[in-house]
Order: sequence, then C-alpha cells, then structure tokens
Amino acid sequence: MARTHRGVEMSRIVTFGEIMLRLGPPDHERLMQAGQLEVHFGGAEANVAVAIAQLGGDAEFVTKLPHNEIGDRCIAELRRHGVGTSAIARGGRRMGIYFVENGASQRAGQVIYDRAGSAFAEVERHDFNWERIFATANWFHWSGITPAVSEASPWFLADALRVAKKLGLTVSFDMNYRAKLWTAEQAAAVLSPLLPSVDVLVCGLDEARSVFRVDANEAAEAATALREKFGLHRVLVPERRSDSASRTSWSATLLSDGELWTSRVHEIEIVDRVGAGDALTGALIFALLRNDPGQRALDFAVAASALKHTIPGDFNLVSLAEVEALAAGGHGGRVRR
Amino acid sequence: MARTHRGVEMSRIVTFGEIMLRLGPPDHERLMQAGQLEVHFGGAEANVAVAIAQLGGDAEFVTKLPHNEIGDRCIAELRRHGVGTSAIARGGRRMGIYFVENGASQRAGQVIYDRAGSAFAEVERHDFNWERIFATANWFHWSGITPAVSEASPWFLADALRVAKKLGLTVSFDMNYRAKLWTAEQAAAVLSPLLPSVDVLVCGLDEARSVFRVDANEAAEAATALREKFGLHRVLVPERRSDSASRTSWSATLLSDGELWTSRVHEIEIVDRVGAGDALTGALIFALLRNDPGQRALDFAVAASALKHTIPGDFNLVSLAEVEALAAGGHGGRVRR
Amino acid sequence: MARTHRGVEMSRIVTFGEIMLRLGPPDHERLMQAGQLEVHFGGAEANVAVAIAQLGGDAEFVTKLPHNEIGDRCIAELRRHGVGTSAIARGGRRMGIYFVENGASQRAGQVIYDRAGSAFAEVERHDFNWERIFATANWFHWSGITPAVSEASPWFLADALRVAKKLGLTVSFDMNYRAKLWTAEQAAAVLSPLLPSVDVLVCGLDEARSVFRVDANEAAEAATALREKFGLHRVLVPERRSDSASRTSWSATLLSDGELWTSRVHEIEIVDRVGAGDALTGALIFALLRNDPGQRALDFAVAASALKHTIPGDFNLVSLAEVEALAAGGHGGRVRR
Amino acid sequence: MARTHRGVEMSRIVTFGEIMLRLGPPDHERLMQAGQLEVHFGGAEANVAVAIAQLGGDAEFVTKLPHNEIGDRCIAELRRHGVGTSAIARGGRRMGIYFVENGASQRAGQVIYDRAGSAFAEVERHDFNWERIFATANWFHWSGITPAVSEASPWFLADALRVAKKLGLTVSFDMNYRAKLWTAEQAAAVLSPLLPSVDVLVCGLDEARSVFRVDANEAAEAATALREKFGLHRVLVPERRSDSASRTSWSATLLSDGELWTSRVHEIEIVDRVGAGDALTGALIFALLRNDPGQRALDFAVAASALKHTIPGDFNLVSLAEVEALAAGGHGGRVRR
Amino acid sequence: MARTHRGVEMSRIVTFGEIMLRLGPPDHERLMQAGQLEVHFGGAEANVAVAIAQLGGDAEFVTKLPHNEIGDRCIAELRRHGVGTSAIARGGRRMGIYFVENGASQRAGQVIYDRAGSAFAEVERHDFNWERIFATANWFHWSGITPAVSEASPWFLADALRVAKKLGLTVSFDMNYRAKLWTAEQAAAVLSPLLPSVDVLVCGLDEARSVFRVDANEAAEAATALREKFGLHRVLVPERRSDSASRTSWSATLLSDGELWTSRVHEIEIVDRVGAGDALTGALIFALLRNDPGQRALDFAVAASALKHTIPGDFNLVSLAEVEALAAGGHGGRVRR
Amino acid sequence: MARTHRGVEMSRIVTFGEIMLRLGPPDHERLMQAGQLEVHFGGAEANVAVAIAQLGGDAEFVTKLPHNEIGDRCIAELRRHGVGTSAIARGGRRMGIYFVENGASQRAGQVIYDRAGSAFAEVERHDFNWERIFATANWFHWSGITPAVSEASPWFLADALRVAKKLGLTVSFDMNYRAKLWTAEQAAAVLSPLLPSVDVLVCGLDEARSVFRVDANEAAEAATALREKFGLHRVLVPERRSDSASRTSWSATLLSDGELWTSRVHEIEIVDRVGAGDALTGALIFALLRNDPGQRALDFAVAASALKHTIPGDFNLVSLAEVEALAAGGHGGRVRR
Repeated sequence: MARTHRGVEMSRIVTFGEIMLRLGPPDHERLMQAGQLEVHFGGAEANVAVAIAQLGGDAEFVTKLPHNEIGDRCIAELRRHGVGTSAIARGGRRMGIYFVENGASQRAGQVIYDRAGSAFAEVERHDFNWERIFATANWFHWSGITPAVSEASPWFLADALRVAKKLGLTVSFDMNYRAKLWTAEQAAAVLSPLLPSVDVLVCGLDEARSVFRVDANEAAEAATALREKFGLHRVLVPERRSDSASRTSWSATLLSDGELWTSRVHEIEIVDRVGAGDALTGALIFALLRNDPGQRALDFAVAASALKHTIPGDFNLVSLAEVEALAAGGHGGRVRR
Repeated sequence: MARTHRGVEMSRIVTFGEIMLRLGPPDHERLMQAGQLEVHFGGAEANVAVAIAQLGGDAEFVTKLPHNEIGDRCIAELRRHGVGTSAIARGGRRMGIYFVENGASQRAGQVIYDRAGSAFAEVERHDFNWERIFATANWFHWSGITPAVSEASPWFLADALRVAKKLGLTVSFDMNYRAKLWTAEQAAAVLSPLLPSVDVLVCGLDEARSVFRVDANEAAEAATALREKFGLHRVLVPERRSDSASRTSWSATLLSDGELWTSRVHEIEIVDRVGAGDALTGALIFALLRNDPGQRALDFAVAASALKHTIPGDFNLVSLAEVEALAAGGHGGRVRR
Repeated sequence: MARTHRGVEMSRIVTFGEIMLRLGPPDHERLMQAGQLEVHFGGAEANVAVAIAQLGGDAEFVTKLPHNEIGDRCIAELRRHGVGTSAIARGGRRMGIYFVENGASQRAGQVIYDRAGSAFAEVERHDFNWERIFATANWFHWSGITPAVSEASPWFLADALRVAKKLGLTVSFDMNYRAKLWTAEQAAAVLSPLLPSVDVLVCGLDEARSVFRVDANEAAEAATALREKFGLHRVLVPERRSDSASRTSWSATLLSDGELWTSRVHEIEIVDRVGAGDALTGALIFALLRNDPGQRALDFAVAASALKHTIPGDFNLVSLAEVEALAAGGHGGRVRR
Repeated sequence: MARTHRGVEMSRIVTFGEIMLRLGPPDHERLMQAGQLEVHFGGAEANVAVAIAQLGGDAEFVTKLPHNEIGDRCIAELRRHGVGTSAIARGGRRMGIYFVENGASQRAGQVIYDRAGSAFAEVERHDFNWERIFATANWFHWSGITPAVSEASPWFLADALRVAKKLGLTVSFDMNYRAKLWTAEQAAAVLSPLLPSVDVLVCGLDEARSVFRVDANEAAEAATALREKFGLHRVLVPERRSDSASRTSWSATLLSDGELWTSRVHEIEIVDRVGAGDALTGALIFALLRNDPGQRALDFAVAASALKHTIPGDFNLVSLAEVEALAAGGHGGRVRR
Repeated sequence: MARTHRGVEMSRIVTFGEIMLRLGPPDHERLMQAGQLEVHFGGAEANVAVAIAQLGGDAEFVTKLPHNEIGDRCIAELRRHGVGTSAIARGGRRMGIYFVENGASQRAGQVIYDRAGSAFAEVERHDFNWERIFATANWFHWSGITPAVSEASPWFLADALRVAKKLGLTVSFDMNYRAKLWTAEQAAAVLSPLLPSVDVLVCGLDEARSVFRVDANEAAEAATALREKFGLHRVLVPERRSDSASRTSWSATLLSDGELWTSRVHEIEIVDRVGAGDALTGALIFALLRNDPGQRALDFAVAASALKHTIPGDFNLVSLAEVEALAAGGHGGRVRR
Repeated sequence: MARTHRGVEMSRIVTFGEIMLRLGPPDHERLMQAGQLEVHFGGAEANVAVAIAQLGGDAEFVTKLPHNEIGDRCIAELRRHGVGTSAIARGGRRMGIYFVENGASQRAGQVIYDRAGSAFAEVERHDFNWERIFATANWFHWSGITPAVSEASPWFLADALRVAKKLGLTVSFDMNYRAKLWTAEQAAAVLSPLLPSVDVLVCGLDEARSVFRVDANEAAEAATALREKFGLHRVLVPERRSDSASRTSWSATLLSDGELWTSRVHEIEIVDRVGAGDALTGALIFALLRNDPGQRALDFAVAASALKHTIPGDFNLVSLAEVEALAAGGHGGRVRR
C-alpha cells in the first residue's frame, strides 16, 4: 500500500476524471493565425496526479481513452511524468480536445472546448472496478468537472466514494465549477449527496457563494462556512487577483483542524496559468500526506502553484527542491549555477 | 451567372460537403512524438473548390460550420484561396477533425478521423436554400462522402440535385468510397437513386467493382461499363500504382462523349498525397468548362493532380501556368529563374 | 451601397495606400541572428481596412501590387481577413518590404524600410478609376504616407478626393508623419491643399505641432486648434506614454461635433505595437458609421487599439465582442472558458 | 515473472548498456549551420528495450545516469515508451552525448561522440544488484559497446552473465563493433571469455570477419561459422547494401536450431537509420519469445527494422499491427484511412 | 601574398559580384503558404569564395552593401565562413533579395529576383581600388551576372581585369547566363572585349551555343571550340541531366592544357541545388591552385559540387576531407562513426 | 599594434578563457519538455571579446577547442561577430557544454554545466605562445573562471601576466566567482599572487566580501577597500537587485583614478541575462580605451550591459549607436523608424 521515497513511507493517491488533448498556438499568436498548434494533454484530475508524481509522490490516474494513437500518446505522456496508468479503461469514439489561446495584457486568454462525445463522457459503470483500483490506495481525489461531463458519471462517483470510504481512503474534492457545463443549481443538486464523503474541499470564494450558497465576503469566512455546512476536515480557498492576462497575484487560505492559515501573496508574471489550481491541490495533498503542519502545507502548496504559472502546458513540471526553496521565502531573481 | 477572367467568360461552380480541421506532425514525425501539429483544412469537395479557384475559376463551397474561432478560421482559409463562402451555414457543436501522419517508404501514411458529432454531420434541411445557392451557378459537384457522413444528408442531396437539374447545372460526382463510413452495399443503396442526376463521374477501378458491381479489369473497361450503367456523359478513372509511401505513379483514363483518352503516367516523389484526387477532379471541371478537348482536358487534370502531390496540405496551390507547363510535356528538372 | 450585418445596414469603406511585405525575427531575436523571418503584411491604410473588416465592417483596400507570387500572397492575406481586393492594380517591379525587429525593455524596436522602387511608389494616374471604386462606398480613408511615398501620388489623391466629395463620401485622414520620407515642411506643403476635403483627422500632438504648426501643449488643445485651422468635423488625438519597449500607456482624445471626449488610459504589456494607431482609426470609423455617441465611439476605438498591442503582426485580429468587452470596462485577467 | 498481454503470458527482458543524449540538426542542416538541435535519447541496448516495449513486450533497461535534469529527462523518455527504469543507478558526473547529422545522397551521415567521463563509463560493481534485477526476468540482452566503453564494465558483465545463466535467462548479444572505441583485437580479447554465455548472437558479416576472424564470404556462411565457433543456438546476420545516404536495401539471415532462413529484401528511403539494427534485434527477441517459427520470426524482425528507417530518433515507434502488416507482405503505398 | 595552410603555401583568390539576401519557405512549402522564411545569403561569386574558404583556401569577396543591419549581417555571414570582407564597399539604398522556392518531383523550383536598385547595381568606379585589392592576390574570379546587373559594371570589370593582368593574376570567368537580365546578344556584345583577359572559362553547352555561337553538340566539342575561339587555357563544361526537381545527374568535362577529361556521373537526390555550379568552380580553382593534375582536379571539383546539392543554402559547407573521400570513389551510404 | 576605426586609432584587446557550447530550451520551456535546444556559444572572456568587437573594437579571443565540427562551429561564430581567432589552440577530447534554462517570475533560471574533461580544462603550457599573442596587443582580459577550471591554468596565467606586463599591456580581471568550481578560500589562494598584475578589477560586493574578505556594506566601500588592498587603478562594482526571474534592476559603481562614479539604475525586463556582466566589462574596456572620462565610461558600460539583458544568447549583439543613445538618457519606448 506504500513505497519508500527518499526514506519516507509514501502513500498512494488515485485521481479520476477526464483528460483531453490540449492544442494551442505558440507564443501570443491567435487561433486565427497559427500555422502550428502545440501539443499538450491536460485535465483537472490528471494535472493533480502529475503534480503529485513530480514531487515524488505515488499517483495513479483513472480515466477512459479511445483505442487510437491519440489515446496511446496520452497514456505515454502520463507515464513519462511518473503517473500510474494501469487502471485506465480503453474504448469510446474519441478523446476530448480543448484549444487554449494564451492571453496577453488586456486580451484575455480563452479556451474552446471540443469534448462532446468523448470516451470519458460516455463511460459506463463496468469500465472501472473500484475495489481493485483502491485496493492499495490511501487517497482519492476528484473534481466537479467529472459529474458535469456526463449524465452517468454521478453514479460512478457514488460507487467510487462508497468504496473509498469503506476502504478508509481520504477523499478530496475540487469544486472547479464550469458555467459552460452546468448551472450552479444543477451542480448543487448533483454534488450535495456526494459531499458528505469528502474530507478535503478546494473551493473558491465565488464558487462557495454561487454553488453552495454560502454567505461570505472573504476567504476565511467562506472556509468556515463550508466546513460547518458539510462537516469537512479541511477547506482550501485559493485567491487570484488579476486585471491583466500577463500578471496575477496568487495566494490561498487553509482551514485545517479548526485553525485558519493564510499564505504569502505571490505577484506572478504569467507564462501559462492553466492548471495552477490543480497544482495547488496536488501539492496540498502531497504536503498533508507527509504530515506538514498547517502553515507549512499551505505555503508549500501555494509555492508549487505559483511556479506552475511559469511552465508551458497544464502539468506542473517542477522539482520538490524548487518548491521547497520558494516556500521557504525564496524568489526567482538569482540564476542557479 | 458568369464573370470574365483573362478575357474568357467564366462559369461558377458550387461544391458541397464537409470540411475538417486537419492536424498533422511536421516532416516524418509520428503522432506519438510530435511537439507541434501543423494546421491545415481540407475535405474532398472543399479541395475541389480550391483547386478550381487557384486556376482562376469561380468556385463556391457550401457546408456548415460551428460559431467559434475554428469555424471562423476555416472560412478565412477558404476565402484566402479565393473560394466563395457566402452560403456556408453556421451552427452545430463542433468542427470535424482529422489527424494525418505522412508515411515514408515502407511505413504507410495514416489518417485518424474525429468527425462524429460535427456541424456538418448534423446539417438540417433548412440550412441550405438551393434555389438561391444555384441561382447564378453552372456546375454542381458533390462526392460520396457527403451522404455517408450523416443519415439526413441523402435527403438534402436529393433536394440539391433536383434544383440543380431544374436550373440546368452540370452535375459531377466523385465516388470517394470510405470503408470507415459505410459498406459498399450501403453506398450502392443510397447512391443508386442519385446517380441518374450525374453528368460526370469520377470513380476508381476498385470502387467501380466493389460499390457499383461493375465487371471490369482495367480503367477503360470500367469507364465504359459505368457509362452504360448510369447513362453518364463522362467518366474519369484515376489510376495510382504505388508500393511505397514515398513514391507513386499517377495517371487517368477519360471517357468523354464516347471516346476514350489515356494520360501520360507521372512518376512522383510524394510530399503530400492527400487531396490529389480532388485536384484531379477540380482541374477536370475547370478544363471542361473552358471547353478543352478530351486529351487536353485529361492531360491538364492529371498534370494538376501530379503537382498536388508536391504541396503540403490538402489544397492544390499551383498556378494555371504551372499546370499548363507540365501538361504540355514539361518536368520539374529546371529551376525557373 | 450597403449590406446588412447582424441586423444593421453596413456602410462600405475604401482605404488607399501602400502595403508591404513585413519580415521580422521571431521572439526577441535580432536581425543579426535570426535563422528565420516571420511573414506578415502591413501598411497604414491596409491595416485600417483589416481592422474594420475584422469588426464586421465592409472594407475595401486599393493599392498596386506586382504580378508575382509575393503580390498574389498579399492579396490572399487581405482576402483572408475579409477585405475587398477587387480594385487593386497589378504591375510594377517589386513590392515594398519592411523589416521589423521587436524591441524589449531598454532596447527600442526598429524598422528598416526597403520600399524604393515599389509598385505603389510608381503608381500612375490610369491605375485607378475613382468613379468606379467609390460608386458604392460611403467613406474614404487615406494617410500622410501615401503622398510621401512618390512624387506622383499627390495628383491621384487630388483626383480621388474630388470624386469622393462629389459622391458624398466622408473622408478621414491619418497624419502618420514619417521623418524618413519627407520633412515637416514638405508634408505641410503637399497636404495643405488636400486637407479641406477631410472630415475626420487623426493626428498626434507632436505631428500637430511640427507639421501643422499648431500651438498646443496637450491633446485637447491640439484637437481644438486643428479643427479651427482646417474646418474639420472630428479630430482624434492618440496619446502614447512609454519609456520601455515592453510597456506603454495608451489613450486618446476625441473632438466631435464641438465636444471633447477623453478615454480611459490603458497600461499595456506589448506583444507587437506596430499597427496600433491604424487599429484605433479603423475602430473609430466603424464606431462612427454605426452612430456610436462620442464617448462610446472613443472608448471603443481605444479598446480596439489597446488589444492590437497584444497581437503579432500589423493586423488587429480581434472580434467585435472582445472589443466591446474591454470598452465596457473589462480587462484581460480572467480566462474565457 | 510474467504478465499477460492480449491474452498471452509475456516474458520480461532486461537490457543493459549506456544511453546518451542525442542532439542533431533538423532536416538536412549541418552542425555548422543549425540554430536548433533536436533532442532524442538513444543507445544500442536502450533502443532494444524500447523496440520490445513498443511491440507490447515487458522490457527493462539498466544503466547509470547522473543526478540532474538531463538524467531525469532520459528516464522520463524511457518510461514514456513503456520501458521499466526501476533498476537504473544514479550518480556520476555527466551523461554521454552524441551529435548526429543526417546524411543525404552523396553526403554520409555522421556521428560525433562526446561520451568520455560519462556516468556509465564510470559504473562501479556495487551499482547493480544482478540477483534482484534478474529475479523476475527471462531474457538478458547486451552488446559489444558496453565492455568497450569502460575498463571496468567487463567485470560487471561477467557478474551479470553468471547470474543470468544461474537463473536460467536466455542471453542475447549484439556485436555492435565501433572502431572508435577499441580495435578488433581488443574486442576479441575481451569478448571471447564472455561469448560462451550467449545464446543468440547478432553479428554482421564484416564484424564476423574482423573481430571473430571467421572465414566467410556471405551471411549464411558467417552464421554457420559463428555457431560452430561459439556453440550458439541462434545467429542473426543483418545485411545492408547502400551507396547513398538516402536509400538502402535491408535484409537478414537467421540461423536457428540448425536451419537457415533468409528474409525478403526491403528497398528503403531513409528518414533516420540510426537504431535500425537495434530494432531488428528487439523485434527478433520479441518474436522468439512468442515462439514464432524461424521464417516468421525473421520476417517480423526485418519488417520492424525496415520501419525504423522511417522514424526520426533512435527509438522504433511502430505498432505491432504495423510490423505484422509489413511482415505479411504489405508495403507503404496506401494511406490507412 | 600567401599564407601557409596545413603545411602548404596557399594562394589568395579574389571574387567580385553581387550578394543577395536569400529568403525561402522551409521544406516544400510554397511562398503562398509559408509562415516563416529561412534566411540565407548567396550570389554566384560569393558562393565561389565560400566554397574555396571552406576547403581551406584564402578567399576574399568584393562587393557593395548598404549601411544597415541587413548589410552588416551579410558581412558577418561571409566572415563566419572564413571569407575576407575588408574590401567590401558600403553605401547604396538597399540589398538585393531573392526568394527561392524549392521544387519537388514534377514541380520546378523557382526563384523570384528583387534586385532592382540594389547597392551593387549602382556601384561606382571609385568604390573599388583594384591596385590595393589585388596587391596580395593570385587569382581573380568573376561571372557573367556582374556585367548584366548594371550598365556601369562593364567599366569596372575592364579596370579590374586590366589591373589583374598587370599584376599577373590568373582570371577565371563563369558564364552564368541569366535570360532575365539580358539577351544572349547583349551578353555577347559586352563580354567579347573582356574574354581575352580570361584564363579559365566555365560555360555550359547551352550557353556556349546561345551566347558564344559555338557550334557543338556535346561538352567536349564545346570546350574545344571555346578554347579555340578565345585562346583559353582551360574550359570547364558542367553537365546536368534532370527531369525531376528531386533528382539530377551531375558531371563535367574539363579541357586543360590541351587534354580533355571527363568526370564520373553522380546520381543525386537533391536537398538544395542552388549554388552547385559555384561550388564546382570554387573547388576547381582550389584544386588548380594546389596543382592537382587534370583528372584529379576535375573529380575533386565535381565531387565538391555533388555534395553541395545536399546542403541547405547557397554555400557549400563541406570539409576538404568529405570532398576528397567522395572524389576518391566514396559514396554516402555509410554513417561515419 | 592598432587599426583605425571611424577615424580613431583603435587598440587591440586579447581575452583568454573557456568558451562552451550553450544549449537551452526555447521560450520558457523546461529541459524536461523541450523538443529542440537552441544553439549558442558563450563563456565569460569570449563574451567580453564579442562585446568589444560589436562596438567596433579590435578583440581577439584565445582558448583551446577540439578538432571537430563543434569546435569549428564555435570558431565560425566568433569570427562572425568580428572576434580574432587566429591564436586558438586546437586539440583535446571535447568542448565544454552548458545547458541554460531561462527562468520566469518565481522560477529561477538555471545552468547545468557539463565541462569536465573539456579541451580547455586540459590546456598545456605549450598551447599558447604569449610573446606572439601579445605582440600587437594593448590590453589583456581574463577572469576567475579560468584558474578554477583546471589545475594547470594558474601556471599559464602567471606566464601570460608576466609577458603582458613586460610588453606594457593593461590587464583587467573579472572575479566571476563560481561556487560550483571552487571554494572562496581556494579562489583567494590562487588569485592572490596574480592580482598584483591587474590594473582593472571587476568584482561584485558579495565576491569582495566572500573571496577577498573585504569589510564593506555597499559598492563604493568595496571598491575603495579593493583598490587599497591590491593597489588597483580602477575597480568596477556591478549591482543587481532582483526578486523575480523576469525583472531586475541594474547599475554599477566605478572607482577610477581615485574618484567614485555611480551610474543610473536601469529597471529591466529580462529576455536573457546570461552574459550581462561580461557585456559590462567589455564596454568598460572599450570606453576606457577611447579615453572616456569616468562618468561617461561608466554610463556607457552600464547601458551596454542593460541592453544585453534583451538579447538572446551570451553575446551582446548591439551597435555602438544603440549603446550611446541609451547612455545619453534614452529609453526603449519609441520604435526607431
């Protein structure tokens, strides 16, 4: 159920969701003008798995992918970054695609989803054997995108959560509300019966207010209200302030075991912000599993996700040492040589 | 109904079908390894329209595209190459995509289609007003892919063909049989009631035998049998002989007004062979409309499509002068300077 | 004389000037080191036409281009972005070229012109039939570059302006003073007899002072003085403040029907600033033609040109919705998904 | 000791040797002119492991790599292509590099090695625990490069071979003679005491004559003589005939259980020939392990390596289906769609 | 007057002519579609100088270039490849440009010249001080392009040739007839008074017939007739046979000191054929200056130029060893490692 | 001993040290993900030589490089940028390599050195003839990297310095302390006996404190203390303040002939900061040799190095005019056209 990593007994984390082929113009070109599109793969839960694996954790990603070279390539990329892929179901007609155009200054970045009819949107109950998937795992992570993508997935999630709790896994959930997929009302209706199984919730202030109807004006308030409402152990509220596509400020608040912690605010010049939230969640899970105390776990997670903003693609390709250095108060101003 | 081009009264050609976003690795890379995918657009009937417009003809392409930047880009690319786009319907959920991997030597090129659920697959009867579309046109071209892509399209085609015949347009049809879309039996069943409206048929020997159950061992025989069977004016049978992905020989046979013409055989070193058949058809239409006699029309069409093999992408970006020079017996051995 | 666009009767705008092949190193490379040069096309009046067409307007660009593949490509690029090209004269020996090196921080961007002997510099009176060109148009736009490029062009411009006024077109003029082409004195001498035909003038404070000898210390003063001097309906004065090649502040003042309007100031991180002034002018024309009131027209134009700074190339490839969102007070800080 | 793959019990193959960072100019550029170098990784034994894993086999590669991002990347690339990396030792000062310039026509391809002082050249006895590495394996593959790279490696190889034989593994050996690393005499002296442990030998005619002093004029003769001399079960003699860097003919002769088999000759247009011999060996091992009879195993192996010539990089990124199709008499002349 | 090179006293060669910025699409893209153009520099006489310098000779190139970054870059590229640039005049308005599109198979390569108004086309008599330029030189090379480019250049050439003969330099001349620059009659008229100063003539069979009105049906005949007609020491007649843009056969005939030599015929798969003739001439000069006997000099020169066909750009970036190996009967079929 | 440059008698500067092949991912990619690496060459003393040559100075770089294409390319690149290369020794096994990953925002740039066993690390006494190298020189520059790279180099440096002083050259030294190469104690021990030969020292505040044990809290103090300690004529102390990999502030203090000068502080948005210190030193040498007074020399040097931050690669590819403009109070905010 665990492997040793640099002298520490490591836990095994399973994440579950859709991963898509991500295509985008290089540099600041627009989709209207690009002669080539850069190839990446990404999806909220896959990004969390990669974030954990890059730090040295033992992460497995579960999804469904079609039987073609695009699906094969996706598995190869996950494997490349150290993520377990043995429980991925194969089948379906196509893989979801999303087109990402980086923004700049006053021009907002944009994402065009082309995910209808994907293999994952059409998963079936027998595609996944949760008893076997969770047999050696300690933690299960999922997000609000999964039940929104297909009508059937809430049923699998109920299955998965039931088995997870039975086997004693910790369960984390990232709201990831997407207005293009469902309304706040639909989200609340589907998620309410599932949240009692969740131990760790990641949820922005806006999402807390719109989906969970929490009455709060700032992060700490929202965290407290969410904990009350759903009986959670921990709540993480990321905060982004940004009025340019080129820069952002980034921080988070953690409510853990009844105590509130607030991170340093990172002022960031953005290379690629897609996946930053997933990097935050992945690093938090990693930190909690190695028993970092509250402030340290939070600082570690926020540092990891600050670094994600500087990496092209969805995946947070940073080393443990880089995250530790930034979390310990470092900055990027000195070349490491 | 016509515009003058270099002193000649030009006819207007309408083609109708699906156009897709084409993505492929550069050079000889595989989908498994490419860091970037090159962006092209293509589809049998769109390729025919571009082939005609590049030669100086007046071509319009009719299709349906989604309301997003990918659809906008597609229209811009057609416009760039001189094709009329004013009758394109907008709507639907997505644009079809196909992934093209160039072959090399013993390794066959391959195409992965991702066209399920495309805007064109879900066209509806009211999307196209054929009376208006054909009002100023002289020629209508379609291919066997269109009725195979969706269940509804045979109905539109019947509409379109009825209007076309009523308005006196010449109708050409390229078999383009795709085994991944339907069986030969299905194709025969759908196409049989439509072929009486066709004046000019483009059909390979294999297709003639498998779909139309024609008993023929070589091109001239097939052309004759097809003419008999469907009462056609003209039949064009392209012939490719190739046992390497890097080279091919390419020629065609034309049965026109009762006479049989055979072209010179071009030995070709391939840059990109996708769209070569469409270039052949487009150039034949162009030549017939300017009243080239049989041999000359055939040589012109085969020369145009030989050149297509040397152009990256689906579109035959060659000039009239280049085609004329090759058709007149030229070759590529001398730098033009 | 007009087409309907999204339910509005649209006007037709003609712009006239030189368009050049633009070549520049990728990213921040210098001309001294680049292995490849990126291909764009641009010129003040062509940029205005593209800016209008991208927003949905009906714009036509008139120029002269040589009979070769470079000229053909240029026309294709204009067509791609929706600009009418049917009145472009063909002939001459070459197309003008300009090499653009993006600046960064303390290093100023630079432009090397190679336009001597271009087809446009050698236009002749019979190249353009203004009666026909303006037959269905409502607006004519030109800039100070055109009469500076060749000795003959002032004569065509007088022709064009005479016909334009006769047919009731609105005339706009952008000073675009280029010290490399002529002196302020020469400019004043050539332009003075032409300005009475102008309705809308775009002119920077520096230009107003150096070319038109206007005594003004800030934008509003200059606008008022210019209106008085030339009897103009509207004057637009763009303002750029910048002491780095990577950033700029950008705003404008509009004097319209006797009232002065000042825009919000945009703090911009620059991707490519070439063509920003033309984007401003194009968007202003678009806004005036749909009868936007003063402040709204100005905010729209400044927003459009702020976005131009984030697009590689001369052309302002933004959508109407993007401009409206920024003009309404938006910013680029949120990914659209 | 085995896993099931598509219903078949699969064996586990271990290969051991040096893997290097491979850098080369794109297309046909020379090192003297390239602005960018393409990144690949490769080495004879690693290539064999990838070749097996791509076909669906269970392969593990053992080597030593430095503790830096280049070493990490190398492991990621192996993992990406499905090769086991858990026994790779970490340490040493640097990773070997080789620069590869593709040839063309009369210009020979060239390789510049920069492998002195590499981590693998300085492996030490305690870096590898052969008992553990071979515990679940069935096959061990090594090549003549390994003992040539460092003075110490013959000692490890003796260890490894002793353990392999003790545990009942089949041992294959590819001569891979490199004149830049040692003389034929040195090679013979070092290899002679090791060859009795070898079951399957891959050796070219030239190598058989120069290193092993075998008196033979063609492949079959060499195979027979080598079998006699070293008591081998199987000998594979690849044959390349080529007088251009752009083309080659490729075939092989297999002596297996006393019978001689000769393959079809493939006429190949080369994309990248580096690693073709390793692809041959890898596919032979795969075929032998699934008990292909002589001719079929040979045809399969030669087909796989013919395809390698069309793939950029050292690794043979082809599918089992592609190899089977070519081995069964196919060719690359038809696009798969 | 000479420097030692690898133990041999080397001579100094001066070449004189125009060098241009060369821009072309990558791979097989057309000018109509390329998003980037590759940057090279080239011109007949500059190419000869680079060919000599790459082999280890001491070559100087004389031309005129404008005072801007494009001119600076050009000088830097010459310097990079070891060519002396100290006598290059600076001034003029622009540098000539030529656009090169590689051909493929049936599609001929093409060149679009944009050289009107270049600095070199407007050279003046005082730009070059031939006494000083030739002071330490042994050989002067020019070509038929130089007097065709501007009306003034014949006068400089007469100056240059007079000084060259006075100082005892050997003079070589490459016909390089370009129909776009002048007629055969004009060429004959201008060149006739200059040819008596020439010692070594390079001239194709077609050029010999059309410009010099020599009555010959094959190379040897032409060489003999040209020698007779102009009293030359040596005549080199290159022969290209090609009916595809992808392949060519290449050889030459040398008449030297009354003896005729014929080279081996190289069958070449073309990467870039521009500059092959210049590579031939440069290598011949190099071989003659080191006193290679007739057959060896010819084989060396033809081998060098065969290799040029495999190098992107105008310049023959090959080493002396590579040329020697091919001249000695080698081929490109074996990777050098 | 000098050449005239733009009417001024120029001095000749010799720099001595290691130059390496520099490889790095494009844009902000990480080494873990880059498909291609950009090729540059760089090294502290080579960078100084290029910086001087680009400004118009006469600089020669002395090093040792292997006899292969990588070494040849390196020499070609130096030559391209106008640096003399005639005293470069050839031999040794390999060229040092360093991998550079650009940082961004919170992610620090990093450098991985792979220089063990390089030709320069193994230079021998007879590789350089200092009497001949310095015969026509006025200035000798070296840095602290050279004696750190190999055990033997301190001996050559003592030779070189002895000859330099004997021939009356000015000697400059840049500390360039690299913790990966030696400890501060080792550096102090090796450098102490060499510093009395130095006239101009470049040394950061941190280096002054850690290596030379100078008790100073800011630049001016350090400069004064260093001058006292080593009897120097001039001390330059660069100052960088930076807490992001994307921005930095940059200035310097110069102690010259007893007077202290402080430069303006440049706030810089970084493109590539590697080599900025070398650009500072090179420009200072250039300014001192043309006898710029203190403040002007310092402003010139700081402006030159501020510009270096905007140029990809190690080399400061800026023109004299660009440096003068910035030194005179300019900024990059205006496009030069």
